[in-house]
Amino acid sequence: MITAIGDAIRAAGARVIDVQADAAHNRMVVTFVAEPDLAVEAAIAGAAVATERIDLRRHLGEHPRMGATDVVPFVPFADLPMSVCVDLARRFGSRLWTELRVPVYYYGEAATRPDRRELERVRRGGFEDLLAHLGDPDRAPDEGPPTVHPSAGATAVGARIPLIAYNVNLKTTDLQVAKDIAKAIRASSGGLPNVKALGFELADRGLVQVSMNLTDYRVTNIWKVFSVIRDEARSRGVDVDASEIVGTIPLAAAVGVIKDAVIEPAFRMDQILEKRVWAGE
Amino acid sequence: MITAIGDAIRAAGARVIDVQADAAHNRMVVTFVAEPDLAVEAAIAGAAVATERIDLRRHLGEHPRMGATDVVPFVPFADLPMSVCVDLARRFGSRLWTELRVPVYYYGEAATRPDRRELERVRRGGFEDLLAHLGDPDRAPDEGPPTVHPSAGATAVGARIPLIAYNVNLKTTDLQVAKDIAKAIRASSGGLPNVKALGFELADRGLVQVSMNLTDYRVTNIWKVFSVIRDEARSRGVDVDASEIVGTIPLAAAVGVIKDAVIEPAFRMDQILEKRVWAGE
Repeated sequence: MITAIGDAIRAAGARVIDVQADAAHNRMVVTFVAEPDLAVEAAIAGAAVATERIDLRRHLGEHPRMGATDVVPFVPFADLPMSVCVDLARRFGSRLWTELRVPVYYYGEAATRPDRRELERVRRGGFEDLLAHLGDPDRAPDEGPPTVHPSAGATAVGARIPLIAYNVNLKTTDLQVAKDIAKAIRASSGGLPNVKALGFELADRGLVQVSMNLTDYRVTNIWKVFSVIRDEARSRGVDVDASEIVGTIPLAAAVGVIKDAVIEPAFRMDQILEKRVWAGE
Repeated sequence: MITAIGDAIRAAGARVIDVQADAAHNRMVVTFVAEPDLAVEAAIAGAAVATERIDLRRHLGEHPRMGATDVVPFVPFADLPMSVCVDLARRFGSRLWTELRVPVYYYGEAATRPDRRELERVRRGGFEDLLAHLGDPDRAPDEGPPTVHPSAGATAVGARIPLIAYNVNLKTTDLQVAKDIAKAIRASSGGLPNVKALGFELADRGLVQVSMNLTDYRVTNIWKVFSVIRDEARSRGVDVDASEIVGTIPLAAAVGVIKDAVIEPAFRMDQILEKRVWAGE
């Protein structure tokens, strides 16, 4: 299955750069890169395999899901405008319904309604909940009639910038310090915009951690978050141990850290030597 | 001339990414990228045109120079080890003498003697001074006999990492503050290693500037320099206005700023999304 989906995407001409599969979640995430038009073809090719092979009526896993192809975000790479990704999401969504008969909910920047911007909200309750509310006009899909594909469910299709997973570890064993700082900085309690934060214990290391998702690094980037946490910790008599940037970040986010950290607002992405050479500028 | 040299380098298969020519200096700098073996061919192709067309006996310009092809540094790109660049420098130097009869002085990481590591020292006095000291055993070239090419002089051939030109502007009109801080941080007066620094006035902006070359960002990078200058300025009651990163910096230097600024020592270059995609990893 995992191989077949990856192969279909590759055969359509895209470059698969990451595949993560997880038995507990019973879920796979394929990350691929392609020119815009090709990205739609490759996503359709992958979705066709998933639609044919995965039956949600017999699918178990810890992660909430509403479709065999559960969620397809189009993420701009390098200098591509977000508007192009919104357009790709809509073209892919339209084809998912007309070609594979899978209803589609648009989310993120491709959302058609404000209450569908957040993926969590679109996907709440998963496949089973969607089945139970087929008549609810509020749950009607953006593509296709108010129904689900019998075995493949429905798909959330979106456009978004890359998320950044970022943690800051603090030199204390007092979990409450991490929880308090997480609360102080998270957007939902009036902290920094586009920041989700939780406090955790790293018991084996004698530290606590503020664990975050930065959902729009253009608004709140790593340096800003680091500085605020460092100051919040200091005011509680606690020092920062270190940061952890989990997985990849876009070059624009790295450039943004430099701009902020050394007060260089004019610094540009094409001042990175490799950007010029690799991107052929 | 400028066109002919660039064309020869391109015809050899290299990609020219920058050409700077300056009438006052009467000098051009061509930056090109190529696979290692090709880089030697392209450099020979460019040097052949310069050797044929430039006659130092009739050449004037403000910049010190000792050869028609004055200096050829091989700079590692992305993950290429410096040892490869040293090898390329030696192969190019050997061919410059055997094929074009231009004597060669190795400098930087390719130097054969400690007193030839610094380009300024190798090139001191330029072509005319070299002519006047042909008999001095201390001035004997590394490739070729103790002489110069009659019209094309001699060439400094080296291997080095990219330099970073970096300035920090201070909110004061007191030039002495910039001069004092420059002195405090420059390597030659016992400050930060691999830092050259001068103090300047930016009279039209009501600021002063500490203007620097960071000759090895692996040892002393932008964040370290910024932090030390900020603290030195603070201790004199002066604030930093902003930084200026001049021209390009390698991705590794940008990654280094992030490591230091947010205390993320494990952050790796391949966590930059574009690096993975562009470099095909």
